[in-house]
Parts: sequence; C-alpha cells; structure tokens
Amino acid sequence: MLLPNINDPEQLKTLSVPELDTLAEEIRRFLIEKLTVTGGHLGSNLGVVELTLALHYCYDSPRDKMIYDVGHQAYVHKILTGRQDRFDTLRKKDGLCGFVKRSESEHDVWEAGHSSTSLSAAMGMAMARDLKGEDNKVIAVIGDGALTGGMAFEALNHIGHERRKLMVILNDNEMSIAPNVGAMHNYLSKIRSDRHYLRAKDEVEGLLRRIPAIGGKLAKTAEKLKDSLKYMMVPGVLFEELGFTYLGPVDGHDIEKMIETFHQADNVSGPVLVHVLTTKGKGYKPAETDFYKSHAISPYKIESGQSLKAVGNPPMYTEVFGQTLIELGHEDKRLIAVTPAMPGGSGLFPFAKEFPDRMIDVGIAEQHAATLCAALAMEGMKPVYAVYSTFMQRAYDQIVHDICRHNANVMFAIDRAGFVGADGETHQGVYDIAFMRHIPNMVMMMPKDENELRHMMKTALEYNDGPIAYRYPRIDGTGVALDPELRVLPIGSWERLRPGDDYAVLACGPMVQVAEEAAEVLKREGIQVGVVNARFLKPLDNAMLLELAHAGTSMVVMEEASQAGSLGSAVLEFFSEQEIYDARVHLMGVPDIFIEHGSVKEQRQQTGLTVEALCARIKAMKALSKYTYKTTSTS
Amino acid sequence: MLLPNINDPEQLKTLSVPELDTLAEEIRRFLIEKLTVTGGHLGSNLGVVELTLALHYCYDSPRDKMIYDVGHQAYVHKILTGRQDRFDTLRKKDGLCGFVKRSESEHDVWEAGHSSTSLSAAMGMAMARDLKGEDNKVIAVIGDGALTGGMAFEALNHIGHERRKLMVILNDNEMSIAPNVGAMHNYLSKIRSDRHYLRAKDEVEGLLRRIPAIGGKLAKTAEKLKDSLKYMMVPGVLFEELGFTYLGPVDGHDIEKMIETFHQADNVSGPVLVHVLTTKGKGYKPAETDFYKSHAISPYKIESGQSLKAVGNPPMYTEVFGQTLIELGHEDKRLIAVTPAMPGGSGLFPFAKEFPDRMIDVGIAEQHAATLCAALAMEGMKPVYAVYSTFMQRAYDQIVHDICRHNANVMFAIDRAGFVGADGETHQGVYDIAFMRHIPNMVMMMPKDENELRHMMKTALEYNDGPIAYRYPRIDGTGVALDPELRVLPIGSWERLRPGDDYAVLACGPMVQVAEEAAEVLKREGIQVGVVNARFLKPLDNAMLLELAHAGTSMVVMEEASQAGSLGSAVLEFFSEQEIYDARVHLMGVPDIFIEHGSVKEQRQQTGLTVEALCARIKAMKALSKYTYKTTSTS
Repeated sequence: MLLPNINDPEQLKTLSVPELDTLAEEIRRFLIEKLTVTGGHLGSNLGVVELTLALHYCYDSPRDKMIYDVGHQAYVHKILTGRQDRFDTLRKKDGLCGFVKRSESEHDVWEAGHSSTSLSAAMGMAMARDLKGEDNKVIAVIGDGALTGGMAFEALNHIGHERRKLMVILNDNEMSIAPNVGAMHNYLSKIRSDRHYLRAKDEVEGLLRRIPAIGGKLAKTAEKLKDSLKYMMVPGVLFEELGFTYLGPVDGHDIEKMIETFHQADNVSGPVLVHVLTTKGKGYKPAETDFYKSHAISPYKIESGQSLKAVGNPPMYTEVFGQTLIELGHEDKRLIAVTPAMPGGSGLFPFAKEFPDRMIDVGIAEQHAATLCAALAMEGMKPVYAVYSTFMQRAYDQIVHDICRHNANVMFAIDRAGFVGADGETHQGVYDIAFMRHIPNMVMMMPKDENELRHMMKTALEYNDGPIAYRYPRIDGTGVALDPELRVLPIGSWERLRPGDDYAVLACGPMVQVAEEAAEVLKREGIQVGVVNARFLKPLDNAMLLELAHAGTSMVVMEEASQAGSLGSAVLEFFSEQEIYDARVHLMGVPDIFIEHGSVKEQRQQTGLTVEALCARIKAMKALSKYTYKTTSTS
Repeated sequence: MLLPNINDPEQLKTLSVPELDTLAEEIRRFLIEKLTVTGGHLGSNLGVVELTLALHYCYDSPRDKMIYDVGHQAYVHKILTGRQDRFDTLRKKDGLCGFVKRSESEHDVWEAGHSSTSLSAAMGMAMARDLKGEDNKVIAVIGDGALTGGMAFEALNHIGHERRKLMVILNDNEMSIAPNVGAMHNYLSKIRSDRHYLRAKDEVEGLLRRIPAIGGKLAKTAEKLKDSLKYMMVPGVLFEELGFTYLGPVDGHDIEKMIETFHQADNVSGPVLVHVLTTKGKGYKPAETDFYKSHAISPYKIESGQSLKAVGNPPMYTEVFGQTLIELGHEDKRLIAVTPAMPGGSGLFPFAKEFPDRMIDVGIAEQHAATLCAALAMEGMKPVYAVYSTFMQRAYDQIVHDICRHNANVMFAIDRAGFVGADGETHQGVYDIAFMRHIPNMVMMMPKDENELRHMMKTALEYNDGPIAYRYPRIDGTGVALDPELRVLPIGSWERLRPGDDYAVLACGPMVQVAEEAAEVLKREGIQVGVVNARFLKPLDNAMLLELAHAGTSMVVMEEASQAGSLGSAVLEFFSEQEIYDARVHLMGVPDIFIEHGSVKEQRQQTGLTVEALCARIKAMKALSKYTYKTTSTS
C-alpha cells in the first residue's frame, strides 16, 4: 500500500506513472469506503482522482496555487495533503470540511461552495503574482457546468484580454449535478464526439500541400486559408477566439497523458485552457450509473450504493413542494417552473415528467433565471423560480431591478432556507429575508409545516399583485396530515396558535415548533407563553402586532435567519413607525458570524435557537420586566 | 419636415428609404437641440437613429417586442412612438423617463437601467409566445459592452441551446461608457477589421474548386474541409458555435442594408444575431470625438458641446475620492483600483494616469470584479472596489461568499449612494446598507463631508481585519476645507456635533447637514436638538447609543437609504439586544417604494428627508412624549 505513507504532495514526485496509477486505485478504494459511513460528494471526487494526482505530481503546492471551483471535488487533494486520517470526521461539526478550507491546510488557497468563482480567483492571484514580481503557477480547476455561470464568462473575458500566464483545467464530465444544459455544453459535446478532428490533423497537412500554388489576387487569400485550416482543425476555437490557448481534449483518467499536456501548457506564455475529460463516479458502478445520487450522498451500502437513510420519515418539504406543484400545474396551465441547474435538489423531476414543456433548467445561471421569470410573468405566464436560498444570492440585483421594480408576478420557491447542516457556511440559507425584505413590492412567507406550505403555494398562485415568495427548510416535514383542498391565506395574516398575554413568541418556519415546545415546558412551570405563527415575513400582521403591544405583551421574535435585518428587525421598525416606543421585543436569530458545517441540530445549539434557550430568554425577560419599567418611569 | 407628423411607427411603413434617411437627419437635429436644454444620453441615441428607424420599419411594435438593453438608447424609439412633444420634460420629475418605461407607452415592453438583461427578457418573451401559440417577433438590442456582462452570457447559453426564434441585434459601437475591454471586445474588433473576410467569400468558393478531387481515405476529410472552409469565412464563428446564426457585420447607418439583413434574419428558424456597426454620437462632432462626455451629459452649448453646468461649485465627492486615491497610491504600492467599466464615472482616470498598472477595468462584470478583489487581497494586495451602489447589487453573492466569508481585506468605494436624481429608480443607491449590513465581517462608513471621506479612505487602507466600505453620494461636496494630513478614525466611532439631551438626530452622509439646519431652526423656537454624525453604519457606536438611551434622549435616525433594514434598523436591534425596551427611536429613511426620476432635492421632498420634515418629526415626538409615557406606565 502506497497511500498510508503519503502525507505530503512532495512525495508524489518520486513515484513512477505505474505507481501513480496504483495510488489512484488505492485512493478510489479509500473514498468509497470512507464515504459509506460519512456520506459526501463521492461522484465528483472519484472523477478527479487521476487529475488531482497529475496536478500534484507536476506542480508545487502551495507555492503553485491550485484553485478548485466549488471546492467539493477536493477530497483527493485533501488526502494528498496530509488529511487522510481525518476523513472519519468529514462534514461533521469540528471535523474535516466538505469543501476547500484555508484553516485546514496551507495547500487550501481558495474557498468556495458556490460555483464559477475559480477563474476570477485565478486571475486575482496571477495579477498579484505579477505585481509582486513572483513566478508561481496559478491553476484553476473548473467543471463544464460551472463554466456556464455568468461570472465565469466575465472572468474568461478578462483573462483572455489581459493574457497573463495562468492555467484553466476544464474538468468536463458532462455534468454538474444534473446533466448540463446550454449551448456551451453542446459545444463541448461536439468536441468530445469529434475526436476524429484530432486524428484528421495530420491528414489535413497532406491535403493542404495538394492545393496548387496560386498567384495573383488569390495568393493572399490562399495563404490566409492555409492558416485558417490548421486553426480550424483545433477543437476549442471558441476559447481560442477568447484569447486562450486551447489544449485537449485529454483523457482525465490517463495520468501520463495529462502530465504530458501540463508540460506542454507550461511552455505557453499566456492563458491556457486544458480540456480534460473525466467520468463522474469513475470506478464505482452505482455512482457511475446514477448521476444524481452520486453527487452529494448520505451514508450508503457499499455493494449497491443504496442509501442507509432511515425510511418512514415524514416527507421533506422539498418533496411536498414538488408534488403540490403538479396539482397546481393541472389547475393552471400558465404555471412554469424555472431552475438554475437544480431540478433534482429542488424536487422538480415529477413536475418535469408531467409537464415536460413547463420545467425549464437554465443551467447554473441564477441571474438569467430571475430575469427570464420576470419576462415570462410580463407575458402572462406564472413562473415559479425554484432556487436554494444561498444560490438566490446571485440574483439579488435581478430581483430588485427586473422582478420587483417591474412588479412582475413571479413566485419564488426558496428551498434550503435556514441551516443546511453538513454543507456548512457557504450554503446557509440565512440571509434571504434580510436581502429581500427591503425590496418594494415583495411579499414573503414561511410555513410552520408542510401542510401550510401547500396553502402558501396556492396563495402565491392566486396572488396577482407582484412578486411573492415562500421559503422552506432543508429538513423533513413535521408529519402533519395534508389537507386535500388548497386554500388562499389572507396576505399578511399571522396565526395565533396559543394564547398568552404576558409573553408571546413570534416564530416562523421550524421555529414555530420550537416555540410550541418551549411554551409547554414553561406552562409546567406556571408561565403562560403565547405562540404566534408569523407566517408572513412581509407584510407583517400589523393588527396582531398592535394587539400584542396594547396588551403589554413581551415578545420574542425567533427565526432561523440573520438576526440583523430579518423578521425581528421588521417588527422593531413597525413599532417605531407606530410610535410605540415601549414595546418589549427581543430578537433571537442567527448572530453576526458565519456558521460552519455540522448537523442542523448542532447549528441551532450553537446559535441558541433551541427550546432551552427560548425558555431561558423568557425567564430573563420576566426577571427584567420590573427593572425595565422602573427605567422607563424615571427617565 | 417629416418628423412633426410622425406619431405612430405604423406611418414609417409608407416611407421610401430616402425619406427614412431624411427623417433620420431630422431626428438627429431634434435630439441635439432638445438635449442642449435637458441633458441626457446623447451619444448612444445619435448612434441608433437609423437602426431604430429600420427596426420600426420592418417590425410591428408593440405586437413585435422590441427590447432595449439598458434602455437609455430608446429616445429615438420614444420619438417614433408618439412622445416627441414631451422631450422638454426629459429626465425631469413627472416628465419623460430617460429609460424605457412601460407606463409611458404600450411600445415600451421591457424596462431596464442596468445592463445585460435584454437577452433574458427576450428569451422569456419568446418562450411565453411559443407556449401561448402566438407568432410575434422578439428583438433584443444590446451593446457590445453589455454583452460581456455575465448574465448576458448565461442567456446566450440558454438561447443557443433551446433555439427558439428570436433576434439579437448586437449594436457594436466599440463602447459602453468607457471604451470596452475584454476578450469579447477584441474578438468583435477582429471582425470589424477583417471585413475582407466578407469580400473573400466569393474568392474562397473559387479556391475550393481548385482542390483536386481526392479519393481514398482522404475523401471524407476533404469534404469536411470544404464545409469548414465556408464556415470559417463567416465571421462570428463564436456565436455560431453557441447556436446562433450570425449575420453581419452590417453598417448601422445604412438603412437599406439593415432592412435587407433583417429580412434575411426573418427567414432563419432559430436564434439570429445581427451584428450592426454604429458610431456613438454619429452626426454631432463634439459627441463623436469625446466619448466619455457624450454618454450621459448635462445641458450644453450646441456649437461646442461644452457643459453649461455652473463652475466654481465645490468638488464632487467622486473627484475628492479620485484625488485622494492618488495620495494613498503613493503611500502604499499594494493599493489597486478595480472598476466594472466605470473608470470615468468613478473618478479613476487621474489614478490610472499616475499608476497605469494599478487601475483595472474589467468591463461590465460586477461579480468578477468582486471576486477578483477577494483574490488580490488574499495575496497581499490592497484592492479598492470602486463601484456605484446600484451596480454593486450585482455582486451581492460574491460579497457574501468570496469577500466577507474569506474576511478578505477588500475596500469598497461605493459611489452614488443615496438618491441619484435624473437616472431615477433603476439607479437609486438606497439599498446597499440594507444588503451589506447583515453580512458578517463587514465594516461600513459614510462621511458627513468630502474631508471626512478622505479620512475614511485612510482608515480603510490602514484597516487589516477584513472588508471595509465607505459610501458617498452623487453630489457636490459641502465645500469644506480639506485637511492635508489624513488620519485614521477609530472603528465604530460616531461624532457628537451638537449637544442636546432631550432630542438627538443620528444622521449619516448628507443628512448630517440637514440635521444641523433643522437643529438651527428648532433652536430659534427654543427646542434644543443634538446632532450625531453616525459615520459608522457598522459597527455602531454602542457607547454613544447607551449614553443617549440612559439620558432618556428621544432619537431620530435619518438616512437617505431604505428605511427597512438600514442604519435605523441597526439602532433598534441594538437597543433590543441590550434589553433597553423603552428607548424612543424614530426612523426617517426611504419608504418602501421605488423612487422615480427627478432632482435629488425633489426626491428628498418626496420621501420627507428634508429640514422641514425633520422639524415636524421632532415636534411630533415632543407632543407625543407624554402620551407615550402614559401608555407605558399603564401597561
């Protein structure tokens, strides 16, 4: 076994290519075995075993900067840079991060989680290198899916223009999470399939020689033609036109070929794009054949790849969304679902099967998706933009400028709202209330359970006064019965679930259940606490807030969202506007730090969004209330 | 004169090409004369006179959808669709909008202001058309600058893949506001200059015939070659590779040629890109020769194009920023300025002249610019991301994910913060506090005058604990003297400008001056009002807030920013966190609506951000205070 002794990429440089191949197989085995227990991004990592080995063989990390786009395909890189012994803790609290993480290793130079940032990062690092007069290499590894994100193109445009020395490895596995879509994908497929272009290269040389020497006015054209012909035989003309030297395609599981190509790339003066073909899930049958499942998986049976996840749990919110969307699709044929490359994760496959023309996957293109929805709405359609909270961040400007300013009837189905668990800080869905609430014309909801989600979807479909959003978490539903009839909720209406004049918790989403449990605990201690399902985040239920204030109720606003700028702020703003300066409102939300990977439960514990913390908060308010009044009356 | 009688594009269809040419000259004259008085986007509109005429001649607006990217080049479209008599009110309050505006005309089908949205809009409208079984045309007019914005590429990728019928007019004037940069620009330039490609087309046919018939294994290659050759002779291979049919380049001032090309385009089944070459400022010498000034101009002398703007005013904040940046650039050679296509508007030309290697214009690419800054900072540089508040909206995700999460030492110079006047609702800089304040690690400042801006720039440069922003308005400075020595402000420190225990205004930016004036007025009426320069928007000056609360001071937080989620919210959140539930804090900010074009003064009046409104607010608080106390003590 070679692998157990590898703890520094320097050690690879003494190995032969056959030894590297052996090491690749050992790494593959290691990944498959470790991930059966921990789960993780198996397929992506199995695809880049040889590529990562070849890179570390050819270059000197960390002097040479290796930048992994998205960063979930860096497990092999982690194994090679001294972290194999930590793989049992993968994606667990305080354990190895599922993405590149600077605090883990000097070999981790760029963190990500969202796609398409690596080219900008590479350009920045190359520019800094040149300004400092250094000469290290800068290498970005980017998937064909991530390449279609708009910011990747912005970077290509800049890199191709400035022509600094840097290397882009296009890791083309024809997939991001779902099979890739888009013209760029079609273009890459053409290169893949037209390999005879490469074989034809020599033949073309012969052919060119057969063109007779030509004089007169055609001479210049003929010369130009000969140049063009050679050029034409190179696949990747699109990248060449954008200022890159294109090399490839090269087999991403052939270490020797890759080493050869990287050496060739090193001799090019400007930016180089090396097109590497890999197979996602390579070497593990269940992952090679089931693309979706092989992306990010939970623990599984090693023989079959079958998930070990408990069966019989209530359906996830995502599934209820997907099923309900079909019901609504039958009811209203204007309904269209739009997804930026997440048809599976967003639960849209059943809808796509039922209405193939009405599910639009635009690829990794959150900005385009938003503006596309605005235009669809303006032409009388009813688009649902199904997107994860964290990825919607990419479309903030389009939400302001194209959707809300046009007051277009776009529905937002915001999945993964709140903590996301193992994906950690890059994926937390805790900002969408804060970045959407202040936009004029926006209506926002969050359901207390999966049944209410269904009514909110109906409410959104029937709403015709502008944009409307419903957000829901990445967890199982509560298991509540689903009403067969869908109904419309009055816009801005909250729900008083439990009476209580002295104290009330205004909670949204899963925090409603936390509030109910805390109220039960406190009741046993003789403290009556009201619970309000603050299901509209905008507009608020003004009447209910006034009632609570007039009754002198002390309020806790509890939300699994940034404490700054979210629902709690809205409540405070409302009372200030109403000149009710003495309402006692305390906020419990996500504090002003990034929350790292762990379980959702651990993330709630870390941020004090628990039954215990809520009980403690209400008791503290009780203890303080006399003191507070005294301050008021003496001031 | 033809123009005075044109009030519907239908009327164009009966005109001959020479008549259309005459009309073009009349429109040009009209624009030059009208804009001397009102100001506006002269250059862009002079460039598209013939193009707009040809479009309205060939297509049936509003049945056929004409979508203008950015929308500032739609003056000709407005003239042709019945709005010539309103040009005296251009960009004035309640007057004609400087951009496309749906409420003005049924011919205005898509509003913008930010660039690169038109292709997504066109795709949405084409998709809706097909789903509804209709057959209208969809036409997007986009500049070569706007084409490099990432979302435009996301849309190209989608359009080229789905291959619905729609037409993209690439209005190539080699400019957006500054001369365009980037590989795409270089590519288009190559097409422009290689016009002999077109002339060579016929010659190539002849040449191909001279290749002798070839048998054997070369036969297939030869055939393929012949196809490739024809294809190679078409410029625009990049667009063809992305699934478009490319037509052009065609002279955008030759109406006949354009009509011909549009007819040709109509016969293509999938998406077509028509490459039209225009000259910005065409027909008006001062505009043709001074690219920057010809973009958006203030009223001018017709003979020379010289601005009529009053001289002797204090320098704009933008100018002070630009000059101070040079001082700092000499002090610290790690300082680098990054701009997304706004070197002029952001006041960076002097810096670029002094430090040509350290001013980076990335083109219209706000997302790439942000992530580039993160990488530069991580490699030890000190990047300043100079950007307008409204355009920074495009980089929200990159600010969260790449800058703040990495805690990278990126400085933000946020220009046009607050109301922007004539550019109106698409350009208002009123959301940046609300969308940046909740991001962990962010520090934000706003100066009360241009002298303080200088100290803030120094403060930012010396700060090494993460991202830090200073925002400043699109107005002249106050005319205050500039300190020659720059100093570092303590992070989170506010400034008490005027004492006052009963009432205090916490103001930021230009609102400080408003507060000072209001305090003077009230003083004459016997009411003492304190004024605080709340120059740090994050973190707040906690100590000062506690002092104010403990003194029982009634506070008004006044800001030219969204009232939801900005500084006022932060103050309310702070008191709630501190369990100070009886602090009287009233918010004065921009209400929850989009604020249309007008002067900054009018926009402040509309939103109650004036001396009068502030005086009234304090008097109301005074009148209410007893009532408020009573409520508190009975509850």
